[in-house]
Amino acid sequence: MSSEFDLIARHFHRPVKRAVLGVGDDCALLAPVQGQEMAVSTDMLVEGTHFLADTDPRRLGHKTLAVNLSDLAAMGAVPRYATLALAVPDARDAWLTHFAAGFFALANRHGVELVGGDTTRGPLNLCVTIFGEVPCGQAIRRDGAVSGDDLWVSGTLGDAALGLLALREEASLGAAERAFCIGRLESPEPRVDLGLALRGVATSMIDLSDGLAGDAAHLARASGTAARINVDAVPLSFALRGQPQARRLRCALAGGDDYELCFTAAADQRDLVVAIGRSVGLSLTRVGSMFERAAGSAPVLLVDGDGRALPAMRGYDHFGAPP
Amino acid sequence: MSSEFDLIARHFHRPVKRAVLGVGDDCALLAPVQGQEMAVSTDMLVEGTHFLADTDPRRLGHKTLAVNLSDLAAMGAVPRYATLALAVPDARDAWLTHFAAGFFALANRHGVELVGGDTTRGPLNLCVTIFGEVPCGQAIRRDGAVSGDDLWVSGTLGDAALGLLALREEASLGAAERAFCIGRLESPEPRVDLGLALRGVATSMIDLSDGLAGDAAHLARASGTAARINVDAVPLSFALRGQPQARRLRCALAGGDDYELCFTAAADQRDLVVAIGRSVGLSLTRVGSMFERAAGSAPVLLVDGDGRALPAMRGYDHFGAPP
Repeated sequence: MSSEFDLIARHFHRPVKRAVLGVGDDCALLAPVQGQEMAVSTDMLVEGTHFLADTDPRRLGHKTLAVNLSDLAAMGAVPRYATLALAVPDARDAWLTHFAAGFFALANRHGVELVGGDTTRGPLNLCVTIFGEVPCGQAIRRDGAVSGDDLWVSGTLGDAALGLLALREEASLGAAERAFCIGRLESPEPRVDLGLALRGVATSMIDLSDGLAGDAAHLARASGTAARINVDAVPLSFALRGQPQARRLRCALAGGDDYELCFTAAADQRDLVVAIGRSVGLSLTRVGSMFERAAGSAPVLLVDGDGRALPAMRGYDHFGAPP
Repeated sequence: MSSEFDLIARHFHRPVKRAVLGVGDDCALLAPVQGQEMAVSTDMLVEGTHFLADTDPRRLGHKTLAVNLSDLAAMGAVPRYATLALAVPDARDAWLTHFAAGFFALANRHGVELVGGDTTRGPLNLCVTIFGEVPCGQAIRRDGAVSGDDLWVSGTLGDAALGLLALREEASLGAAERAFCIGRLESPEPRVDLGLALRGVATSMIDLSDGLAGDAAHLARASGTAARINVDAVPLSFALRGQPQARRLRCALAGGDDYELCFTAAADQRDLVVAIGRSVGLSLTRVGSMFERAAGSAPVLLVDGDGRALPAMRGYDHFGAPP
């Protein structure tokens, strides 16, 4: 057996239970499930763009799957399968062992079976396609928000962006804050349980990968509405609260990699939303509301606690200026 | 809208008909089809490993999808959907336009809908996940070959490998031979119709991406048998027939990127197999047969037309020595 296939088999060939056929043939085979739609998403992580060269491979294995699970969470889908294609510069065995350990630890927690993959030589690149199931018609899409809905987010925002600043030595943090923020950056916890619990309650949902301002704009645009965000209501961790005001805002509103959920729900569902958050162990915070978008106006309006308008802020953009 | 999302939308956002939801949300949504299994495969193409930096982007768009369609063909699955993740070093608009044109021209021919994707900055890397449908239990797997089966291949082998030698100026070819072989390398035609027509006839199948010797070994191993290949029977194009014997053998048996199908069928199905080839406009050639594998012996035995054993030959291996 050639070394390429050895590598694949050794690190990523696990038996499957749910899939009809897993890794090892030209294709995997998945059985249809009556009444369930298949939710599918793909994400590519590139060294230097999405993570630093010296990132711990176990954490990277976790994150590679986590960002994809987050997309399923944002649709209210149950994770089922994944494929993993990876390019590595050389046949680095210890690295692959740790990467696989992080990947499968998270996969096992969510019942995800790795059913296919590709391993090749090249600059480090990790591409996962994820498959989930959601009852027909019950997926939570981006386009369901209506004027008057509340806008909610889970957890705290901006920690990962602050973690990146810390790694680049562009922000100096205490030891606890630094460890917390780098953990948030490198080991995001996809909000799968929350996504499932919000079926039938959230009118629209997106996961926060590019920053609240930009991602809320995606929701608003898809729904044909606008979002008013009270920046003073955005939930901040102990780590971010200790930072200067400008950095706080920038990290929480335009920082990437939060992987929290942002969703809308009718205003009469507030008690239910809070209860759902409690049931999955996550704080949910109302950060604004949706309103009718006037022609030619921006999809997101930032205001402070006194209702004063603030300048617009862009989401993270791989081809634009650095955040 | 940020430039990253502009790029995605402009080049890869096409309306879908079959899918419930296409590009533009956190996930695509695919409706279940009663009685059909979903066949899934993923392939990653990397600049410098799978294609040269100056490859025509239209051809590259074609090939990126073609190698994935070839995996569906090898299972006897009908192509349905694809996702495309790509890393590009910069927001190269003309390149993306041509790449998308090549990708969608082939996608449209096979009724494939692009339902999801990711665009990011990084060394050029193209990752497609492909989805097809095959009636439950009818997929043609690698593990069904039995001793006594014939071993068949479609088309001619080794042309792409010779094309790569020509591009590297390591082989000198006439103009017609050169154009033909580079075309075979850069614009492979996935044998989707053949794969479908072989359902119920082929006992096992694989697509030839790493060379006949290596890929036949995969079939043999998965099936618990061995393959005897008559190298004098391997079908060669006019271009390869003009090459020295050693290069002919090397390209046809250990060259990558053929994307022909290699399959087994019972010996009493010969007339039917030939008729199937004719019905889809492809020549099919019997290149050997399967036999019981003795413990400790190789999965592939190469012999010449007089039955004399030849030295073993490895398939293409991204981490091994160059072919």
